[in-house]
Amino acid sequence: MTADPFLDEVRFDADGLVPAIAQQHDTGEILMMAWMSREALAETLATGRVCYWSRSRQALWRKGDTSGQTQRLVELRLDCDGDAVLVRVDQTGVACHTGRRSCFFRVADGGAWKTDQPVLHDPKALYGHSHG
Amino acid sequence: MTADPFLDEVRFDADGLVPAIAQQHDTGEILMMAWMSREALAETLATGRVCYWSRSRQALWRKGDTSGQTQRLVELRLDCDGDAVLVRVDQTGVACHTGRRSCFFRVADGGAWKTDQPVLHDPKALYGHSHG
Repeated sequence: MTADPFLDEVRFDADGLVPAIAQQHDTGEILMMAWMSREALAETLATGRVCYWSRSRQALWRKGDTSGQTQRLVELRLDCDGDAVLVRVDQTGVACHTGRRSCFFRVADGGAWKTDQPVLHDPKALYGHSHG
Repeated sequence: MTADPFLDEVRFDADGLVPAIAQQHDTGEILMMAWMSREALAETLATGRVCYWSRSRQALWRKGDTSGQTQRLVELRLDCDGDAVLVRVDQTGVACHTGRRSCFFRVADGGAWKTDQPVLHDPKALYGHSHG
């Protein structure tokens, strides 16, 4: 891993990860929350295409590699404590593996979670086997 | 802790916490990211005032108790995997302990983090001793 004073200001947790919030840059919509390793963050900055760390697969997760639903980096922000990043992106298609635009499609309503976003893409068409 | 099928759908991590993204409900601005315990989440829903779990203080953190910069809950959302919540709020004043509106006041710019949000409130006026 390269020494980089810029990346050194990010405080990765004990697992080497930092939470990353993805927001559509023009509408302000929150698309998803995932995690980035130092390597994922460096790659995202180098390529301009958002790359996360998949905790379930324990591997770099180049968003859209399987589904085609990529995220182009528009702006990267760091919070006051350095332990969370905000990734402002341009999302192609849908962010959620369920085929919805955003992963936050459930809203608290009278003691239950209600889904209020439509499925825009058939998940079966988006994926062979895994998230992406 | 009460049994509640609604809260049971939230997947708290090994520390009993879930990341919570706070977004100003009308402007879409991301204000901060913090953590909620089951108790913090239940209290937020019961009172309509946002309560986090402070990892540094290991205590419930009723946002604004010290600073007066409270967050009124407008809408609570849960993501597809149940392991992140989006809290849409009405923020009084500033969210950040530095006196800035948002904690994400640093933007990546040419290999450095640049601050592009002004201090709106003197932090010394907001706090006696601690965050809040």
